[in-house]
Amino acid sequence: MSILTVGSVAFDSIETPFGKADRIVGGAATYICWAASYFVDDIKLCSVIGGDFPEDELNELRGRGVSTEGLEVKQDEKSFFWSGKYHDDMNGRDTLLTELNVLADFDPVLPDSYKNCDYVMLGNLTPEVQLNVINQMDKRPKLIVLDTMNFWMDVALDSLKAVIAKVDVLTINDEEARQLSGEHSLVKAARAIRAMGPKYLVIKKGEHGALLFHGENIFFAPALPLESVFDPTGAGDTFAGGFIGHLAKTDDLSFENMKRAVIFGSLMASCTVEKFGIEKLKGLSTEELQARMEQFSNLTRFDAAVAF
Amino acid sequence: MSILTVGSVAFDSIETPFGKADRIVGGAATYICWAASYFVDDIKLCSVIGGDFPEDELNELRGRGVSTEGLEVKQDEKSFFWSGKYHDDMNGRDTLLTELNVLADFDPVLPDSYKNCDYVMLGNLTPEVQLNVINQMDKRPKLIVLDTMNFWMDVALDSLKAVIAKVDVLTINDEEARQLSGEHSLVKAARAIRAMGPKYLVIKKGEHGALLFHGENIFFAPALPLESVFDPTGAGDTFAGGFIGHLAKTDDLSFENMKRAVIFGSLMASCTVEKFGIEKLKGLSTEELQARMEQFSNLTRFDAAVAF
Repeated sequence: MSILTVGSVAFDSIETPFGKADRIVGGAATYICWAASYFVDDIKLCSVIGGDFPEDELNELRGRGVSTEGLEVKQDEKSFFWSGKYHDDMNGRDTLLTELNVLADFDPVLPDSYKNCDYVMLGNLTPEVQLNVINQMDKRPKLIVLDTMNFWMDVALDSLKAVIAKVDVLTINDEEARQLSGEHSLVKAARAIRAMGPKYLVIKKGEHGALLFHGENIFFAPALPLESVFDPTGAGDTFAGGFIGHLAKTDDLSFENMKRAVIFGSLMASCTVEKFGIEKLKGLSTEELQARMEQFSNLTRFDAAVAF
Repeated sequence: MSILTVGSVAFDSIETPFGKADRIVGGAATYICWAASYFVDDIKLCSVIGGDFPEDELNELRGRGVSTEGLEVKQDEKSFFWSGKYHDDMNGRDTLLTELNVLADFDPVLPDSYKNCDYVMLGNLTPEVQLNVINQMDKRPKLIVLDTMNFWMDVALDSLKAVIAKVDVLTINDEEARQLSGEHSLVKAARAIRAMGPKYLVIKKGEHGALLFHGENIFFAPALPLESVFDPTGAGDTFAGGFIGHLAKTDDLSFENMKRAVIFGSLMASCTVEKFGIEKLKGLSTEELQARMEQFSNLTRFDAAVAF
């Protein structure tokens, strides 16, 4: 199944306790496309870049099955740029600079070939743009996944709620779930948020794993304990790409398969954070991914056939 | 198998966002004994109390198979007292008052009947007292588990390291593991701490679950997502009681069984936090515990038979 992906394609300058990377390729949609490309080879990218974005990066994406027909290029403008510095414990970060550039007035127009996608991944972006994309689809997709962040809760809550009401899966982090719902208990927060529309809620907890809520079911996917987390940038976007990638590949929306999708999302994210930007995500071998799946599987597996 | 348990038996005054409890029964050994009593009926308690401690509470413990032969009663003194207030998010707490009372000069003398226990649980206490107890054993126990906290790392690091060198399992939380090792990555921290002596390390992460490290193996036990966490006091002690309780019951120190012990510890802790103090821990039915085990099992179980 093909996946329509909307989100930023951009440059990031990142500083972590382990080093600095200047103007490397980033953006939510970039991470999503790379992660999803390990599952499907038909990804339709909707975004906007400036004339400064390197053509060879786009060619690499095309080589992974990513269509750039819906990628607008504004030759005389600059791509979105974000610069940030992570705290020593890597759990927090400060934004040093945000230059919207081409994203400032991004008004996506979907090519006809994009309008029948069954799987839609709305990467972190202005809620109005996300809604605009949903409204351009020819038919209701089988699955719409929405990723967002606290920034939009602060500045555009009504628009955000309007998008949330139209999607099947929402992915946010634990603090965002608490902010959006006003509930501290994640169980109560999940109930409140699902009442806003999404049948499924994924709460991402970074190094503490991810929770999937659906009806009365809860699934927990651990994060892989890593020797070193080098750069957390894009972990959430990568999660989203692996998550929808697995669902589109299998075209199976059962809860059992959603659980696996959360595992695949976590697995892809565990790769991304081990190097700067998309560096590691670009060169994963099947053997490496399989070995990591084995690690994930062993991490939580126990024999419960023991009674009190 | 019998379990020797050392730790405080005390009073706590607790304030949480949900209410206040004044001078209720607490103490590390109290939680450990209650939790372990769901697994074995031969627990030897070593502690000290004042004349103010209620006899009916001791009788309840005796009714659960807890020997109080090694429980010193100083009739003219007062029991240990701790008072604390939890922050609104329940993730932090302030100590309002600590009255050591009988604990100030606690010098445990093990009864002969205690000296052959194969399973020893050293609850959070002065490292010197923990070491003193180990040294009184007639033979090396099959398993010594040590629980401690950052306070002892701050004020008695050398003594603490001397105890750590003599135990098989250390249980601490994630911040304590980072403090003790000087490593931020828990994988690296675990390696450094196991080099200090313990073959097994359990890192407790509260609402984020617990990690078990042994050799190159890592096991992750989730915390059960709860509707409401009412009072986190004693969660770590309860974990320790369930953990060693299961091991003593099964007398099986394989890694597979250690994994189950971490699950049982997490399960018992998930009960404790739902009410004040030991209230919930006192009245658990087998049906309730079995149902909770089913929840734990479902929480992380997924079919990994899917390849890249």
